[in-house]
Amino acid sequence: MNRVFNFSAGPATLPEAVLQQAADEMLCYGDSGQSVMEMSHRSKEYQAIIDACEALLRKVMNIPENYKVLFLQGGASSQFAMIPLNLMNKTGKADFVLTGQWANKAYQEASKLCGADNCNVVASSKDKTFSYIPELDSSKFNPTADYFHICLNNTIYGTRFAKLPETGNVPLVADMSSCILSEPIDVSKFGLIYAGAQKNMGPAGLTVVIVREDLIGNAKAGTPTMFDYTTHADNGSMYNTPPTYGIYILKLVLEWIEKQGGLDAMKVHNEKKAAILYNFLDNSKMFKATVEGEDRSLMNVPFITGNDELDAKFVAEAKKEGFINLKGHRSVGGMRASIYNAMPVEGVEKLVAFMQKFEAENA
Amino acid sequence: MNRVFNFSAGPATLPEAVLQQAADEMLCYGDSGQSVMEMSHRSKEYQAIIDACEALLRKVMNIPENYKVLFLQGGASSQFAMIPLNLMNKTGKADFVLTGQWANKAYQEASKLCGADNCNVVASSKDKTFSYIPELDSSKFNPTADYFHICLNNTIYGTRFAKLPETGNVPLVADMSSCILSEPIDVSKFGLIYAGAQKNMGPAGLTVVIVREDLIGNAKAGTPTMFDYTTHADNGSMYNTPPTYGIYILKLVLEWIEKQGGLDAMKVHNEKKAAILYNFLDNSKMFKATVEGEDRSLMNVPFITGNDELDAKFVAEAKKEGFINLKGHRSVGGMRASIYNAMPVEGVEKLVAFMQKFEAENA
Repeated sequence: MNRVFNFSAGPATLPEAVLQQAADEMLCYGDSGQSVMEMSHRSKEYQAIIDACEALLRKVMNIPENYKVLFLQGGASSQFAMIPLNLMNKTGKADFVLTGQWANKAYQEASKLCGADNCNVVASSKDKTFSYIPELDSSKFNPTADYFHICLNNTIYGTRFAKLPETGNVPLVADMSSCILSEPIDVSKFGLIYAGAQKNMGPAGLTVVIVREDLIGNAKAGTPTMFDYTTHADNGSMYNTPPTYGIYILKLVLEWIEKQGGLDAMKVHNEKKAAILYNFLDNSKMFKATVEGEDRSLMNVPFITGNDELDAKFVAEAKKEGFINLKGHRSVGGMRASIYNAMPVEGVEKLVAFMQKFEAENA
Repeated sequence: MNRVFNFSAGPATLPEAVLQQAADEMLCYGDSGQSVMEMSHRSKEYQAIIDACEALLRKVMNIPENYKVLFLQGGASSQFAMIPLNLMNKTGKADFVLTGQWANKAYQEASKLCGADNCNVVASSKDKTFSYIPELDSSKFNPTADYFHICLNNTIYGTRFAKLPETGNVPLVADMSSCILSEPIDVSKFGLIYAGAQKNMGPAGLTVVIVREDLIGNAKAGTPTMFDYTTHADNGSMYNTPPTYGIYILKLVLEWIEKQGGLDAMKVHNEKKAAILYNFLDNSKMFKATVEGEDRSLMNVPFITGNDELDAKFVAEAKKEGFINLKGHRSVGGMRASIYNAMPVEGVEKLVAFMQKFEAENA
């Protein structure tokens, strides 16, 4: 078995130790005589798994008591609807910063469901293909908005908010799909955090929502039962059958993170990898990062040669050497290396060595 | 490793050969160098898996060309909303047969989203704790309803429709969560079939929808994008990241079904198991099935002793012997043995032998 270095933006590489444990336990979890996949979600055995998963997530992320953790389905795309349906219920207005495709989808779905006139675009970086985080002019913030939405890390464009907008009493809502668990964050600064699991948490099909309790319970009339946070908060994410196996894998990933030293250690690990790659890019004559300065993501690193043929050649040769999924998103072109928690330093070092070799051979 | 016989109503037992293959491939699928869980859903490797899964499902169920197969999230509970939002769009009326908790939830969600006055209850078996399938009086059918909803097999109560209602031009919509793939069905008799995967198909978190193409494309205004069948039909279930690993497991399960001889063989296998259990129950002096005659489910077999203490003793002793999850649903009491495709004949034979022994010891 020859494992590749997988730079996919998501679903993405997982810790090998997690996969090994999942394989070992596939036919029999502990002394239960069953696979986790076969367990009744109402069984004691499974309740222990989901409880441990939530407790670990609370510990690792230091989630305050007055926040609910929900294990949902439907991806961030379902949150784009659930958030306005549940939160746009006082003034019926919300603020949005458009920093990429996903931030834009959150804005568009809120506009569709709650009226475009009620959705205020505070700033956008569309003018330069979302290659930067726009300066925020707080005079454009609506001080009575029901929430203020950002996408904290922009997977496609490789940008991230280095500092959070100061929204005062307006709940800050953040899509953290591609940066959750990558470094410590202060959960108390957010009203709601959401993330598809398939980057830093586990398999696709699990979505984690961390929501301040006072924001639950006011869904608009006509909200489908499954799109009402109350439904899930009141039932411990067990209103219906949750994605049981995905939650189990998240538990294993959280155990792995704890063993590495928690989110402080993850931050060191991720900054180290990002520095290796950005330093190389900043010194290369062939390759160039598409994002500058403090807006640079720790997780997703887009880069180009400026020559489409050369880009394609690089991606193809890299694949042969076991560096896969390096092709950039079609909206940016070039390449992108996603270097989530589970990507080892060795993977980035070897990628850079390969890039150096490729540059020398194709100069 | 001592595998138990798992009679859970869902998530439920899976074929051991499927679990073994999943374990073997966990760190490296084929020569891809990755786990299926780590694969980009946009990669060639993964596209081949989802394509093969759909092709196999079409072959095994003999799904006509003019039906779309959708791989979704959110369980049957999300379908309870998606169906009225997408289908109650011509006369805005629908018919419902209430044969249990899930059938009732489908009715209630349609009532909530599209108006109780528009939802016609054709028949109900609530008067006897849903222990039978009610006779249907076709004069109570609305001939211009947008759809006619049934729950084909009622997991909690152990009933099933032995024959389908004749709804003429009104699309028949069926929740088949607990009986899909258990025997051949004529898909062309249905407008829409839906099923949570966690009984006969694979892990929780995957929902399969089989829908006639002409029923797609007319969602009500204000339907969330993720709740519009068009979104998923137009994008090959890849509008956003699908539950990739669940789809892979479904593919393995379908391969296993094919190897057993397809749905004809499944029917023989399931009828054999059900006959062993019902025959014993019909001849026991202690245990009694709660459902009679042709309404009896092949998949879920509830039974009682009539004595709560004895029931509890039975469930506890059975568990010690490796027969787990035999406790009945709280609304029925007693016991329930769910004997889905993956339950071997041996499991039912050994359960009956244990019941005989228990009966002798506790007479």
